[in-house]
Amino acid sequence: MEIVKLLHMNGGMGDTSYANNSLVQQKVITMTKPITEDAITQLYCSTLPKSLVIADLGCSSGPNTLFVVSELIKVVNQLRQKLRHQSPEYQVFLNDLPGNDFNTIFKSLPSFQKKMSSQLGDGAGPCFFAGVPGSFYGRLFPSKTLHFVHSSYSLQWLSKVPEQLESNKENIYMARTSPPSVLRAYHTQFQQDFSMFLKCRAEEMVLSGRMVLTLLGRRSEDPSSKECCYIWELLATVLNEMVSEGLIEEEKMDSFNIPQYTPSPSEVKSEVLKEGSFSIDCLEVSEVNWSVYNNDGGYNVAQCMRAVAEPLLVSHFGEAIIEEVFSRYREILSDRISKENTRFVNVIVSLIKKE
Amino acid sequence: MEIVKLLHMNGGMGDTSYANNSLVQQKVITMTKPITEDAITQLYCSTLPKSLVIADLGCSSGPNTLFVVSELIKVVNQLRQKLRHQSPEYQVFLNDLPGNDFNTIFKSLPSFQKKMSSQLGDGAGPCFFAGVPGSFYGRLFPSKTLHFVHSSYSLQWLSKVPEQLESNKENIYMARTSPPSVLRAYHTQFQQDFSMFLKCRAEEMVLSGRMVLTLLGRRSEDPSSKECCYIWELLATVLNEMVSEGLIEEEKMDSFNIPQYTPSPSEVKSEVLKEGSFSIDCLEVSEVNWSVYNNDGGYNVAQCMRAVAEPLLVSHFGEAIIEEVFSRYREILSDRISKENTRFVNVIVSLIKKE
Repeated sequence: MEIVKLLHMNGGMGDTSYANNSLVQQKVITMTKPITEDAITQLYCSTLPKSLVIADLGCSSGPNTLFVVSELIKVVNQLRQKLRHQSPEYQVFLNDLPGNDFNTIFKSLPSFQKKMSSQLGDGAGPCFFAGVPGSFYGRLFPSKTLHFVHSSYSLQWLSKVPEQLESNKENIYMARTSPPSVLRAYHTQFQQDFSMFLKCRAEEMVLSGRMVLTLLGRRSEDPSSKECCYIWELLATVLNEMVSEGLIEEEKMDSFNIPQYTPSPSEVKSEVLKEGSFSIDCLEVSEVNWSVYNNDGGYNVAQCMRAVAEPLLVSHFGEAIIEEVFSRYREILSDRISKENTRFVNVIVSLIKKE
Repeated sequence: MEIVKLLHMNGGMGDTSYANNSLVQQKVITMTKPITEDAITQLYCSTLPKSLVIADLGCSSGPNTLFVVSELIKVVNQLRQKLRHQSPEYQVFLNDLPGNDFNTIFKSLPSFQKKMSSQLGDGAGPCFFAGVPGSFYGRLFPSKTLHFVHSSYSLQWLSKVPEQLESNKENIYMARTSPPSVLRAYHTQFQQDFSMFLKCRAEEMVLSGRMVLTLLGRRSEDPSSKECCYIWELLATVLNEMVSEGLIEEEKMDSFNIPQYTPSPSEVKSEVLKEGSFSIDCLEVSEVNWSVYNNDGGYNVAQCMRAVAEPLLVSHFGEAIIEEVFSRYREILSDRISKENTRFVNVIVSLIKKE
């Protein structure tokens, strides 16, 4: 797996969008590229569809929104040229929550389509785009209509904050000090959500259809492992500090929890096997440093985390504390990045739809 | 044809949206209802699709956007209950230009879908929505994927202002004083656009697919007939008056023309026959009074025309003159409505996709 120089972090969530691209990297080199290319290649060669239907789930709205899709289409176009086949038509569905800014995506499409068609050259089939608002934890498409499903940095978001987290008072996510009941509640919500996701996609995908999912996750089997929880523990530290200074109500802090679950590869595998509609072509883990540039003093990771956490914090605590929270958080992140080797872990799974 | 009490006027256009619903009527009773119901009934009974794919072209964004689609689905749901068939799944594509406000439509969908599913009751198939940005004078969908196409008050808009209208100086549309070359230029642009529309839809629709189109039009074979041109002549009168007062530059006025064509039924028929992919199930004309309420003093029709004309006027003349233009226009419209029996004419055509 190639070393990634730039962090592709589509954060966000809540009611607005699975992937709140407020910090958009100039260039995204997706770690999943070889896996995705392999999957679309196998899909095309095994099904040779006249219309190839692709869905990007949790597409966000920013310069990166159309990047993966355009890469997929380029791969197919090269293949069909090599095989001397007539080009398929492409239909691309861009999905995110109804609060996502689809208007901005749609306004950028005419110039994107122009660029695409000049890059693909003569003989390439037309590419039709549609926006699909809604949660991917429910059905979004008619039965047996999708050939290829892609989702990046969205599926670690749960459909809601798990229930029965009352005992997770000074934490805002799973943490080393979380009681076992909290870890169980998080895991159960992940199992429910992820298996619902698989069930819905299984109905929507054609036989031999392919799905490549990238989630924030962890290597360890311990759900409160530092690799996935530390970044939230640091935010909790800031919030607790502000509680002790009387800037945040203790009760508010006690009831705040992040609706995320960062699974291990074996947890992902276990849900896929249990649901039963897909076989696993490949399951990998890769890492990205918190600090993707040298000497950025934690600024980038703080910006990323702000894009992710701000909507959640605002809806729970209100606007007033936000600047102070992120000013302190930036400082603490910068300190840790200079002292420790901190990384995000990504779980990537490539699935094949069975009969 | 039922007498229409409320004017369903989706105006607008330019770069933003085919149907700029700035005046939204509380209740829209579409004249096309019996024709549309007949078409969807025939479609369902002749094709019995497992997934029924509907496209609304020029959908606009307002409370009326989803109205026709929901009526169509209700008809199918009643039919399948009567016939004791399992319900199809529904996929609805909402199309308009990329500048249309899709975000607002998408945010309204969750509550709309909830209402729909409670109205349809148990056993009704799920209904999936997608937004499709782009001009319907080009391809929007993959081949042979649409069962039912609907378009209301959008197809009278041309893809652009016709060329060679230099001699149409004091007019802003076809008018009694327009030279024959101007009428020809308008008609030619309509022929090009409408036949391109038919050609694109012919590729996208399945065999026996149905299409119901409602356009602003005219009864007369004279393209400068009062029934379709008078409302623009009155706007031209206002603009010319403001030119003579030095409020508008003469040059600006000379070069302003409305990108619309209001065809006769025979012109519509002739393009359909020439293009050759569709047979005509029915072709009708109906009328709506300019003043749909008694004693509204022309206010409603002025609001409608403002929604239609404002984006065009602003982009050509700038913001500054707008209030003055519409204040004068409202006055002149109110005067004419009180003295004359002024009506809009609608051409409705129901088409069947041939082999």
